[in-house]
Amino acid sequence: MTDPTLEPGSLRSGYASGRCTPAQVVETVLARIAARGDDGVWICMVEPDHLRNAAAALDPADRERLPLWGVPFAVKDNIDVAGMPTTAACPGFAYEPTTTAPVVERLLEAGALLVGKTNLDQFATGLNGTRSPYGVPVSVADPDLISGGSSSGSAVVVAAGLVSFAIGTDTAGSGRVPAALNGVVGLKPTHGLVSTRGIVPACRSLDCPSVFTTSVADASAVLAVLASYDELDPYARPLGKPSPPLRMPLDRLRIGIPDQICAWGARGERACWDELLSRLTGAGAELVAVPMEPFFEAGDQLYGGAWLAERLHGLATFLGERSNEVLPEIREVLLGAGGVSGVEAFGAFDRMQALRRTVSRLLATVDVLITPTVTETFAVAEMVADPVALNARLGRFTTFTNLLDLCALAVPAGRGAGGHPFGVTVQAAAGKDATISAVGAAIEALLGDAPTPAAAWAEPPAATLDLAVVG
Amino acid sequence: MTDPTLEPGSLRSGYASGRCTPAQVVETVLARIAARGDDGVWICMVEPDHLRNAAAALDPADRERLPLWGVPFAVKDNIDVAGMPTTAACPGFAYEPTTTAPVVERLLEAGALLVGKTNLDQFATGLNGTRSPYGVPVSVADPDLISGGSSSGSAVVVAAGLVSFAIGTDTAGSGRVPAALNGVVGLKPTHGLVSTRGIVPACRSLDCPSVFTTSVADASAVLAVLASYDELDPYARPLGKPSPPLRMPLDRLRIGIPDQICAWGARGERACWDELLSRLTGAGAELVAVPMEPFFEAGDQLYGGAWLAERLHGLATFLGERSNEVLPEIREVLLGAGGVSGVEAFGAFDRMQALRRTVSRLLATVDVLITPTVTETFAVAEMVADPVALNARLGRFTTFTNLLDLCALAVPAGRGAGGHPFGVTVQAAAGKDATISAVGAAIEALLGDAPTPAAAWAEPPAATLDLAVVG
Repeated sequence: MTDPTLEPGSLRSGYASGRCTPAQVVETVLARIAARGDDGVWICMVEPDHLRNAAAALDPADRERLPLWGVPFAVKDNIDVAGMPTTAACPGFAYEPTTTAPVVERLLEAGALLVGKTNLDQFATGLNGTRSPYGVPVSVADPDLISGGSSSGSAVVVAAGLVSFAIGTDTAGSGRVPAALNGVVGLKPTHGLVSTRGIVPACRSLDCPSVFTTSVADASAVLAVLASYDELDPYARPLGKPSPPLRMPLDRLRIGIPDQICAWGARGERACWDELLSRLTGAGAELVAVPMEPFFEAGDQLYGGAWLAERLHGLATFLGERSNEVLPEIREVLLGAGGVSGVEAFGAFDRMQALRRTVSRLLATVDVLITPTVTETFAVAEMVADPVALNARLGRFTTFTNLLDLCALAVPAGRGAGGHPFGVTVQAAAGKDATISAVGAAIEALLGDAPTPAAAWAEPPAATLDLAVVG
Repeated sequence: MTDPTLEPGSLRSGYASGRCTPAQVVETVLARIAARGDDGVWICMVEPDHLRNAAAALDPADRERLPLWGVPFAVKDNIDVAGMPTTAACPGFAYEPTTTAPVVERLLEAGALLVGKTNLDQFATGLNGTRSPYGVPVSVADPDLISGGSSSGSAVVVAAGLVSFAIGTDTAGSGRVPAALNGVVGLKPTHGLVSTRGIVPACRSLDCPSVFTTSVADASAVLAVLASYDELDPYARPLGKPSPPLRMPLDRLRIGIPDQICAWGARGERACWDELLSRLTGAGAELVAVPMEPFFEAGDQLYGGAWLAERLHGLATFLGERSNEVLPEIREVLLGAGGVSGVEAFGAFDRMQALRRTVSRLLATVDVLITPTVTETFAVAEMVADPVALNARLGRFTTFTNLLDLCALAVPAGRGAGGHPFGVTVQAAAGKDATISAVGAAIEALLGDAPTPAAAWAEPPAATLDLAVVG
């Protein structure tokens, strides 16, 4: 079998036609993972025989009913799966949950096959992709470059074709930055649309499960499975299922773009961006410069303001007792929050409320906002040498999203120097998940930038045909 | 003219029939205020000639169009009116606003006549009614007793028949406690339904303008004027106008009542409560005990938890520079918040989010929650001697409301010993303003407890009739 795609739609038709079986797909997954060797993307794998048994246990009678029947996936290791430890990339913090997070439970109930739990920046703190004692996942495009984080492993396992999709989390851009740096799709749905129970908190009021896939349609399909009001999650919102993405005619779109982009990397990012804008204009879209200042002011609060105290709150007990088990740079980031006063916190909420209103007015003038996801990237060695400043540069267009209650979809948008992936993020107000998916799909179609098509699954063994002839 | 009512409906029909004019009503108001003398309820009056001119300037052609044409009202003195100082009951804090708060602006545009600005607990901090250097308004029912606060003056000017309605503010119950203690209606609408711009902040995320009237219908009518999405208020919510209260058949209502009421006062409060429950049951309503613990846990955060830091935030600059100009007990309450850390603040939000969800589930099982507004009251001397502990006792059934994002309507519900007013509050989830008004009106009707009807405005002078005869 020559490198068949794991794209869910392809698997679905492969299963339907009998060209492949879950057992074969599982062996493909295991072989690919083995072939990559120690790549730092996994923290814990499902036992191979366990995975084989799960595939074998799938009832073919359920195939049409279960939208993810036989589709292999991975989960970031800050999300609980009963029977596997949750580490949040901190061995000293690890615990054995007795309950599986609803976000994973829904996927399993939809027939998906859990392959393993992926590496992350410790406590999902950072966009770096380098902050883990379990190794450093690197970009699939260049092993010298960072994968981005914090959902580093989840982005890479999808980009490397090890699974069909992966679940990450996103508080500051952790579901989008590594998507961009590995050339895959990263969806951060509206906050409250997907349950956050059973997820190690980063900033509980902002944390959001995210989805990595190779296409926008797949991300929407996974979101359709995940989206469900969880009455037991205090942050859940009764939003209903987002409608499936429609084709959105670009010639009727008003697209907000940043009025300022301060820093461009040296890997052709700017050329990719200019090319995209030119194609969007060519397709009839109207581009409108949106003032970024209120967005940036909001985003700066995440790692440089009051919300650090929320991050610390979730971990204060552990840090108080066992701070030596936390990576020094994470410890430093978190303990910096100890100086934030309650008065400052309330001042920051009040200011954020005003910024939300300002941004809401700005976004009301356009259909969506499109920005580069990241404008530059860094070598692993650069990132390790200057983790805090470079983290801030990576998050310029992502850290404001959750604080401003937006939904966001990172999509690949061309390739720069040396085939380096470039990506943009489509953002809109809470609840506009279907809109960002539609625009993301339109960009995919416009650029024809889907990943190089992998071979389809081989035709089914000739046995049936032989039998027919013989019979 | 023998003590005519200022009830807006009565004025409206008086104006329509020519039985009275705004000029006459203004003279009545001025005479009544003068008759009460120095009662501590006003901080600043509109100049009498100014008020007369405003009445004279009302165009009779606008009478039908303007819902509050010629209706006199008062405003709590933490709300800006251009041309009058805003003191928040702190002379050192006073400033001269150049812009009138939208909440007042809308009333003036609807034809209402502003009579003056009323006394309050300094910085709207407290339910006491005793914390002001401008004097202590006392209960209209008994001069030894507190009026309750913080909207002390606004409640008393309505209860004493000095104006038709008054605007207060409500963060912890300031729009409801003094309503109960003076036997009038106090409406705290859904947060964000009425603009809070131009109001001195207590806790900005919770502050809400409130309405004092002598009937539920009047409160609804004033709310209909006030309710408007203010794009410039970051806390505004696009809720639309609440529908006018309908008659709500009690025999189909499921009414939540507290599963515990810890302290009853000595003025017949309990008997009034029992009588109300008995009448509600008699009318066919179903009473359901609701566990109060999560409500109380939430409410305790307001004056005994993290939200003190929000109160301090609004005043930190002034307090830092001129704390000697703040009443000692207010200063002590506010400065106590300095010890709240950012981590504690975020911990409290997280907990509050969970409590909101719990309460939301509890309230989903009933149409409304009805509680006593206060279960006891205190002499002015008692309150001055023990202001913090007694404040907490007054707020048992009011402090949770805003933190849990409920709307609330305090209505009179009988009279206890010595004619002392007793009241209950109808509460429901955000957006259910029409529901609580309907239930409040049903309670009014059930108890027949409208204030003793005042004389209607006298028949018009016989001139017209004479003329007809002569003609």
